[in-house]
Amino acid sequence: MPADAGCSERLPLADAWAWLDARRSPAVPEAAPLAEAAGRVLAADLLHPADRPDRDIALSDGYAVAAEATVGAGPYSPLVLPARPCRAGEALPDLADAVLGREAGEPLGGMLEVSAPVARGAGVARCGEAARRGDVALPAGTLLGPAHLALAASLGATHLTVWRRPAVALLVAGPKPPCHEALAAALAALVARDGGLPGAHPADADLVLMAGRSGWGTDDDAAPTLAAAGGALDHHGIAIAPGGSAGLGRLGAAPLVLLPGDPAAALVAYELLAGRLLRRLAHRPADWPALLRRVRLSRRVASPIGTTDFVPLVLSGELAAPLALPPADGLAGLVRADGFLVVPAGREGYAAGDEVAAVVTAPFTPRNAP
Amino acid sequence: MPADAGCSERLPLADAWAWLDARRSPAVPEAAPLAEAAGRVLAADLLHPADRPDRDIALSDGYAVAAEATVGAGPYSPLVLPARPCRAGEALPDLADAVLGREAGEPLGGMLEVSAPVARGAGVARCGEAARRGDVALPAGTLLGPAHLALAASLGATHLTVWRRPAVALLVAGPKPPCHEALAAALAALVARDGGLPGAHPADADLVLMAGRSGWGTDDDAAPTLAAAGGALDHHGIAIAPGGSAGLGRLGAAPLVLLPGDPAAALVAYELLAGRLLRRLAHRPADWPALLRRVRLSRRVASPIGTTDFVPLVLSGELAAPLALPPADGLAGLVRADGFLVVPAGREGYAAGDEVAAVVTAPFTPRNAP
Repeated sequence: MPADAGCSERLPLADAWAWLDARRSPAVPEAAPLAEAAGRVLAADLLHPADRPDRDIALSDGYAVAAEATVGAGPYSPLVLPARPCRAGEALPDLADAVLGREAGEPLGGMLEVSAPVARGAGVARCGEAARRGDVALPAGTLLGPAHLALAASLGATHLTVWRRPAVALLVAGPKPPCHEALAAALAALVARDGGLPGAHPADADLVLMAGRSGWGTDDDAAPTLAAAGGALDHHGIAIAPGGSAGLGRLGAAPLVLLPGDPAAALVAYELLAGRLLRRLAHRPADWPALLRRVRLSRRVASPIGTTDFVPLVLSGELAAPLALPPADGLAGLVRADGFLVVPAGREGYAAGDEVAAVVTAPFTPRNAP
Repeated sequence: MPADAGCSERLPLADAWAWLDARRSPAVPEAAPLAEAAGRVLAADLLHPADRPDRDIALSDGYAVAAEATVGAGPYSPLVLPARPCRAGEALPDLADAVLGREAGEPLGGMLEVSAPVARGAGVARCGEAARRGDVALPAGTLLGPAHLALAASLGATHLTVWRRPAVALLVAGPKPPCHEALAAALAALVARDGGLPGAHPADADLVLMAGRSGWGTDDDAAPTLAAAGGALDHHGIAIAPGGSAGLGRLGAAPLVLLPGDPAAALVAYELLAGRLLRRLAHRPADWPALLRRVRLSRRVASPIGTTDFVPLVLSGELAAPLALPPADGLAGLVRADGFLVVPAGREGYAAGDEVAAVVTAPFTPRNAP
């Protein structure tokens, strides 16, 4: 095959995303203990098992009274009434239906001087006010964080029904041993970040990542190797840079993303292609698990028309300095980056001073003074 | 002790942060295999073991030539020279010292027609150009992400010297069983997020989190329980809301953060106090592992002077809707939030339409169209 085969027919990234977004997610729910459910995606609505609160409760520390008994109280005609001290969140005692705050004074011998009428329900959360039994507490699709786990536990849940994590197989061919290790370590971390389980055998995988020998040179045998294993590429060559020798296909029943062997190009192709698919397979939002931030470019960025370019950025306040990815040493650029810019295929780049949307991957650490 | 003891002497959050920031990090390095090093913090500089590149290499696919032989070539006097095809990143063959790109044409019988002189070093990355042997490839203090692991592996590293993860003990007292579970699951997830190892025995812990019975009521026995175990509180009562009954102290040699038993208040006190200390103990940046974003409040936020208030926010584009945290049902608010606003002690709050800095904890998922 000539060295530049595919170059002229590289698939636009938008079409690659359409291909990725057409893959179907395995919809296999499983029960996860609460302690292992962080980062998982809820596969079924979690319902309130009872009214919330399940009885009338005090909204603050104070004194529970019967509202009816306060009728007629005034600054010139205070009433001395039985009042039970109560704590925020506690059920009201029998006959009480309102709560006066601590500022109402100190009771003496269980009796409190009240100098204004109190409305029934004042200072009280009524039974069922926050939620009714059967209401949805956490909807299916929730990406579970600490507060979700706390809420689930407070509702008595010990396990949650979550989507099974997609199993991801990694086949690295070609690059010399250190590069193989580099890809294995980095891709496993990215797979875990995006909700997948790395280390699967290709026969059991929900997604196969194949890396190395992806180009069009005489020793680039990724495509024939895949064909010999019973797989195929639907597309070979994506209009992205770096990472243009990536491909999309399948092995057995699993979708397959072919990544370049150069570690930096492989990580970029993961971010632009494979990560999107994995997040969808994991029932997560397809977009990058990162924030967009408006930044101003400190230097111009050149980008050929027809190719979507991945440009690492070093952020400093509102300024973003684009980094070059040297062809044989792109990792040195990637490790310095706080985020990246994606230059759409239709643009020739940006001028210095242009405002762009940066995908910020490193937490920004400004002074958060109290 | 009277129910409101401590209220008037609650420690300002700035002073609590000063106390937290004065705790010393355990400085115990350990070796982690690359595959387990994601999220760890490098404890020693990683050095380049050799010049990078370690020989002159081609910057792109093309043809390696001897620059000297091209002297005199011109459009009207092309020279036909020996040219060896080479790939990006490959070492130059002997005698070659420049690389012509593929656009230079197709060689015939190993000979290429050259119609312009080529400078020595053109298209070549010189040995040691990117880094010299002994240069720092990754500095101590780097929070290791996928690209760092790839770079380390490409330098031949199989293990990295990282700081030991702080061991965190969790002692939950007081709240009824579901609340206990709620705190255990949520706090373990937060501890893992901030680089700690949950589940330690208090005797082996680098940090103790004690939760529940933290207030000043008759059944609030956290302080005497801690004293009976040989610990002590340096401060009890922090001027934050919710979470004001939190405290700072020690148990054995480990610093201790006392958290309220109410799950929502406990999570807030973790975010405002314990998380900051844990990240420092883990040698991470002390600030929240989240982005700040300028947003506009859709409603006013009231906050008493003298208290630092934690206000959950629901974000929608540039607008942020503040959420109430009902005293007995704060988790319902926390689970809906995309981030939070910290109202400084010196402010009475904000008006609707005010621009504030939101700490964004949920990844924002805008349309990232290619």
